[in-house]
Formats: sequence, structure tokens, C-alpha cells
Amino acid sequence: MTRKKERGQLIVLSGPSGVGKSTVIAELLGQRDNIYFSVSYTTRQPRVGEQNGVNYNFVSREEFERMIAADELLEFAEYVHNYYGTSLKLIQEKLSAGIDVLLDIEVQGAAKVRERCPDALFIFIIPPSFEELSRRLHRRNTDSEDVIAGRLEKARQEFREIPKYDYLVINDKVSNAVEEIAAILTAAECRVPNRSHMLAQFA
Amino acid sequence: MTRKKERGQLIVLSGPSGVGKSTVIAELLGQRDNIYFSVSYTTRQPRVGEQNGVNYNFVSREEFERMIAADELLEFAEYVHNYYGTSLKLIQEKLSAGIDVLLDIEVQGAAKVRERCPDALFIFIIPPSFEELSRRLHRRNTDSEDVIAGRLEKARQEFREIPKYDYLVINDKVSNAVEEIAAILTAAECRVPNRSHMLAQFA
Repeated sequence: MTRKKERGQLIVLSGPSGVGKSTVIAELLGQRDNIYFSVSYTTRQPRVGEQNGVNYNFVSREEFERMIAADELLEFAEYVHNYYGTSLKLIQEKLSAGIDVLLDIEVQGAAKVRERCPDALFIFIIPPSFEELSRRLHRRNTDSEDVIAGRLEKARQEFREIPKYDYLVINDKVSNAVEEIAAILTAAECRVPNRSHMLAQFA
Repeated sequence: MTRKKERGQLIVLSGPSGVGKSTVIAELLGQRDNIYFSVSYTTRQPRVGEQNGVNYNFVSREEFERMIAADELLEFAEYVHNYYGTSLKLIQEKLSAGIDVLLDIEVQGAAKVRERCPDALFIFIIPPSFEELSRRLHRRNTDSEDVIAGRLEKARQEFREIPKYDYLVINDKVSNAVEEIAAILTAAECRVPNRSHMLAQFA
């Protein structure tokens, strides 16, 4: 079911590396109408298999710095000499058109979005257990033990930020996590202030 | 999907006569586990077909006044010389056992619950239009034109209380309204404070 909306909702999704966020997001986008996944901008080089406009919008350092100067970014950060950021303009266009916008963003970026867009929905995804997170990172078979240990330590730090989020979703099973996120979005649509335009006829 | 809960949620459902609340509630209760519909207490006589413990708990005036004196009621009101009220004790037992409790209650009763239980979820159900509400009241074929006019006027007064509610659900179709209420309940379960017990293992 899709009801007409005055304005889309901004949704910030965070969670540790290995929790399965990409799978959950892909599933959610497949099930839901009127939702747009905001692809980040970066100055780093594409990896094998990565597509421009799908995984990232790949731009030059000059272009990224122009975007910073023009205040075109909702948030950005520099990691290992590369910029990563979120375009504000595209998000605003989608929200005004009544389309929800989903951001996949780590905890520091989320903190910046919270300052500028306190009305966004902040959702944190956790694994069913720390051991399961470790198992999933090992199963990916892409990282060395050192890198995995680093990711797990980073996860512990990220978990400390959960109290700043609105919702906590457990990815024990992709379908459960997707169901919970879908419920959070539907419930937010039902909030009285988001439906005040429906009340005029009853006044 | 049902996840273990520390504590149930109290849900207050209001909406005008004729909006289809009973049908929506029956459908919701059939679909969802761990939810208990709180049957009101009343001193009025059962009507033909009404069952004690199902439609109402029918009690004597003496018993009802004892419950008032013993502070056993979450809210109560007197209409046309009859008392109507909600038992607090049973609700507390269910909530402590991790079971959600649903109250079907009009706007004055809801206002009293809001004072005592500000953490409850307050949901108001509206028809798709005022004309449709009128059609539904006529279709029931149980009330005279005068009574229907009175119900529609009361509905207009009730609609003014909507800004005090958290959520607005539209009963254009029973399945849509049930889906929205179910989403509101699931989303509330995902709120970070309601899941803090899941975080201990990640600390």
C-alpha cells in the first residue's frame, strides 16, 4: 500500500561493517515504492566491479572541493586522503517530491546529519551477537585477521553511539530486519504531523 | 516474527462511531501474537447478544464504586447513569509479562490515560472522508437519522482532539488500517529505549 505524501522522509541507516546492511537495503528498495537510495560521492578510485552512480558517484578532488565550498553536501568526511560525502541538493529534490531518501552512513556522518536534519529517522542495525558479527566478517573471506580485528574494535566503538539513534533493528535474518525497517517507515508516515494535510476536510 | 520483550506496550485506539474500529481490532488481534484487548467494565445491562467478558465485563454499581475507591481503574466515566471504566490491575499484569495491551477508548478516556501513562501509543482512526463515515453509519441500519446526525456531530468534535494523538490511521480499507497499526506497534518495539536490554552483550 502507498499513500500520497506531502513530503518524503530522510532515513539514516548505520551499522558495523559485516552486519549485512547492503543486503538489507537492496531487499528494502526492492519491496518499497517511493524510496530513493542516496549514492555517496567520493574522490577515491573505483575498485574492480564498482560502477559510477551505483556504488558511488566518483568525482575528482577539485569537483568535491567545489561542492564543499558551494555547501552542496549534507555531510562529508576525509578518510585515508579521500573524501566521502552526501549531496544535499538531490536529497532535497526527492524529499520535496514526496520520496523517502535512505542514507547508508557511519556514526560520525550520522551525527552531522542529526545536527542539520533532526527530523530524520535514525536507525542502527546490529547483529544478533558479537560472535555472529565476527563469523560474518570471517565468512566474507576478503579481510586478513588484523583487518577483521580492527573492524570488530570499530564496531564496539560504534555500538556506544546507539543511544543517539531512534531505532534499533536486529539483523538476525534479512527478512526480519527489512520488516522492521519497513514498519519504522510506515509508522513515521502515520505520525499526526505528517498527515495533517488529511485533516482539513474534517474541520 | 515475534521478538522477546521486556515489557508490553499500552496502545490507546480512538475513533468516531462508524469508523470500523471493532473490525480493525478483531483483524489485528487475529494477526498478532502477544497482544491483549482490554475489555471495559460497565454497570449497564447487557444488550441482546452481548457476552460478559467479551463485549464488556458487566458488574454491579456497588462493585464498580468499590473499584473506584480502591483506585483499581485506569480511567472511568459515567454516561447516562452508567459507569464505564478500564481495569488498571489487569493491564499492569499483562504489560509486565511482555504483552501489549490494546484499549478501545473515546477521546475523554484517552485524555485521562495520557495523564497517567504518557508512554502509551495514542492512535486515532479516521475514515477516508466525512461522507464515507456518514455512509457507513447509514449502512449499519441500526440508528435513526437523528441519532446518526448526533454521531456525526460528535465525530467532528472528536476530530479536533487528533493533534493530541501520536498516530493517525486511515480506515479506507480494513487491511490497510491493520497494516498501519501493526507497523506502529512494531516500530515502537524497535525504539532504542525499548531494546536497551539487547545492548549489554555489545558493551
